[in-house]
Amino acid sequence: MSLPETTILVARQLQVRDRLASQNLDGLVVTAPANIRYLTNHAGSAGTLVVTRSQMHLLVDTRYEEAVRRVQNSPSACAGLEVWPVPDSYEEALVDALARLDGPVVVGIEAGHLAVGRYEWLNRTLDARRIPVSLRSTERVVEQSRVIKDPVEIATLREAAVRLEGVARAAFGAVRAGVSEMEVAGVIEAAIRAAGYEAPAFDTIVASGPNSALPHHRPGRRRLVDGDLVVLDFGGVLDGYCSDLTRTVSVGTPSPDAERLHAAVLDAQQAALDAIRPGVASSAVDDAARQALVARGLGEAFGHGTGHGLGLDIHEEPRVGRRRTGQAETLLQPGMVFTVEPGVYLPGLGGVRIEDDVLVTANGHERLTTVPRELVGLG
Amino acid sequence: MSLPETTILVARQLQVRDRLASQNLDGLVVTAPANIRYLTNHAGSAGTLVVTRSQMHLLVDTRYEEAVRRVQNSPSACAGLEVWPVPDSYEEALVDALARLDGPVVVGIEAGHLAVGRYEWLNRTLDARRIPVSLRSTERVVEQSRVIKDPVEIATLREAAVRLEGVARAAFGAVRAGVSEMEVAGVIEAAIRAAGYEAPAFDTIVASGPNSALPHHRPGRRRLVDGDLVVLDFGGVLDGYCSDLTRTVSVGTPSPDAERLHAAVLDAQQAALDAIRPGVASSAVDDAARQALVARGLGEAFGHGTGHGLGLDIHEEPRVGRRRTGQAETLLQPGMVFTVEPGVYLPGLGGVRIEDDVLVTANGHERLTTVPRELVGLG
Repeated sequence: MSLPETTILVARQLQVRDRLASQNLDGLVVTAPANIRYLTNHAGSAGTLVVTRSQMHLLVDTRYEEAVRRVQNSPSACAGLEVWPVPDSYEEALVDALARLDGPVVVGIEAGHLAVGRYEWLNRTLDARRIPVSLRSTERVVEQSRVIKDPVEIATLREAAVRLEGVARAAFGAVRAGVSEMEVAGVIEAAIRAAGYEAPAFDTIVASGPNSALPHHRPGRRRLVDGDLVVLDFGGVLDGYCSDLTRTVSVGTPSPDAERLHAAVLDAQQAALDAIRPGVASSAVDDAARQALVARGLGEAFGHGTGHGLGLDIHEEPRVGRRRTGQAETLLQPGMVFTVEPGVYLPGLGGVRIEDDVLVTANGHERLTTVPRELVGLG
Repeated sequence: MSLPETTILVARQLQVRDRLASQNLDGLVVTAPANIRYLTNHAGSAGTLVVTRSQMHLLVDTRYEEAVRRVQNSPSACAGLEVWPVPDSYEEALVDALARLDGPVVVGIEAGHLAVGRYEWLNRTLDARRIPVSLRSTERVVEQSRVIKDPVEIATLREAAVRLEGVARAAFGAVRAGVSEMEVAGVIEAAIRAAGYEAPAFDTIVASGPNSALPHHRPGRRRLVDGDLVVLDFGGVLDGYCSDLTRTVSVGTPSPDAERLHAAVLDAQQAALDAIRPGVASSAVDDAARQALVARGLGEAFGHGTGHGLGLDIHEEPRVGRRRTGQAETLLQPGMVFTVEPGVYLPGLGGVRIEDDVLVTANGHERLTTVPRELVGLG
């Protein structure tokens, strides 16, 4: 696994500390795993990070101590990180860590991640132990940095997207009448590993025939039959970063209906891609896809949003969906990476989705995924 | 996918409603996906369920509408469930749903799952819209039922555990000098699919040589060499239920050190298994494993807990770890299912972990996983 170097982490931490200062916070308790990884290179599934204006404390249990030690002895070390072992419970270790800060202090928590029960317990316990720390809800303190990818992240996301070509080839090779959805999913996941990804980025979707009308179908025992549309949605994690691709193929020669649906979705996707440039609202990208489908009488068949941000998490900012009344628009900026994945779903008949990963550039967009989008008949 | 039938759901809902009544709650907002699935058979990754004493409302977005419709037209339908589409945001749909209750009412939220930010937004919005609903934190309202598996769940967990035999055979067949950790992980995941599982239950661990000293190592590019210990930790999801197995093998003939470590962990695991019976504290099971390792001077090398509950979630109740001061003990009861997985980790040298899934029975335990535990030399 290759990790960003020390100087990159320092730049990220500076941004977060600037935000803490501007919100009059003395520190932040970071509990979202992707945020901890972004700031420290600690990639474990557990851990709590306390960032103050001058210090960083990582609380980890023994399962991760050796892994943290390795990173700290590498060029990707997190400078100034103090690692504190968690002997028992993370909650108690956090209270002890907060007690050691020079109080009285105001410390943010990540309201989008911390569960109500942990928050209430922390407040009660700080109070009972008379520790002069006040907790305060914050939103997006780290995510505001993460939404704009730095050059190292862009290079990783680009490579993660390009490698899906080999996976798509394997998937297309597996599609034929008589094979089950689960068997195709197995071929896809083996190809994800063979391409050098650490893991699948999410549960692979193989949705055939009538199942293709279910946007989030899980692969089942259904065997493909001639004339099926098959939605293949998969991705891999490379050096921590997610890729995500959907192609819809036909078993045997596509029917005229399949051709028509596929052409409509491809048009909608292209309209969305064409709308991408800095300064445009993300909802305008959604709207471009939606209007293309409405124009063909398929507006009702496109129920979900057009895309989601991609990075250390498979779903992150920016959201690319309908404008929400009363909520601020997200304006696209260079360095944002997200999926563009319109789809149509006709219960009883079937569905089509086409998804690519894109980077917002200075003038428009770069499509990171490289697999051809035309409807192919396979098997 | 086979799902529990309607009558089983009704029995589960009755238990939850009894708990609501005893806590003077008029309803519960269920946001944990596994809890929603347990009560309704809705298996999507998004959704919010509102349970009152007499009604159940499921809020889902269009991605899942067709899947819900299929379940509702099957013998596994959730009786009395009203399905409400979520046109835009789950938060707003939930406020609308709460507004339609016959107020004023007191409704619980799942404090272990709901994020602080959503909770604060809900409270503010209910207040601003003068909706006479008070939210109150609750813990374990659904989980108290889930921790004791019913016969349908036990049958599924048993089958999910037994099928790991084929996966282990494939994994053992892939271990030899020159193969990379990621390649072995690929073979394991393909075998998981071939065995009929819906998905891997968690990110597969293949930790070889010095990496075996990292309990949660992610498979990397390291190639196995003769004399390596290799920790293989994997599982699959069958009809929604998780299985989880760890075996440690040797590349070529095991060294005397490897034999010694493996024998110590096997002894510790057997001691833990022998301690399992109804009425015993889960911490006593942990203690049995721990004392066996302490007796061999390996107490320090066993940093994590002995096990975790298994079910719809890969980590659920009961926790099988050290007793926590000030916290109530969990007493084992028939129908609990959990892992028993002591391990020793010696940085620079390597590690061994042995994990099986067990069911607490009326008199003791049943080991659900069936793969032999002896140390084998492979390749």
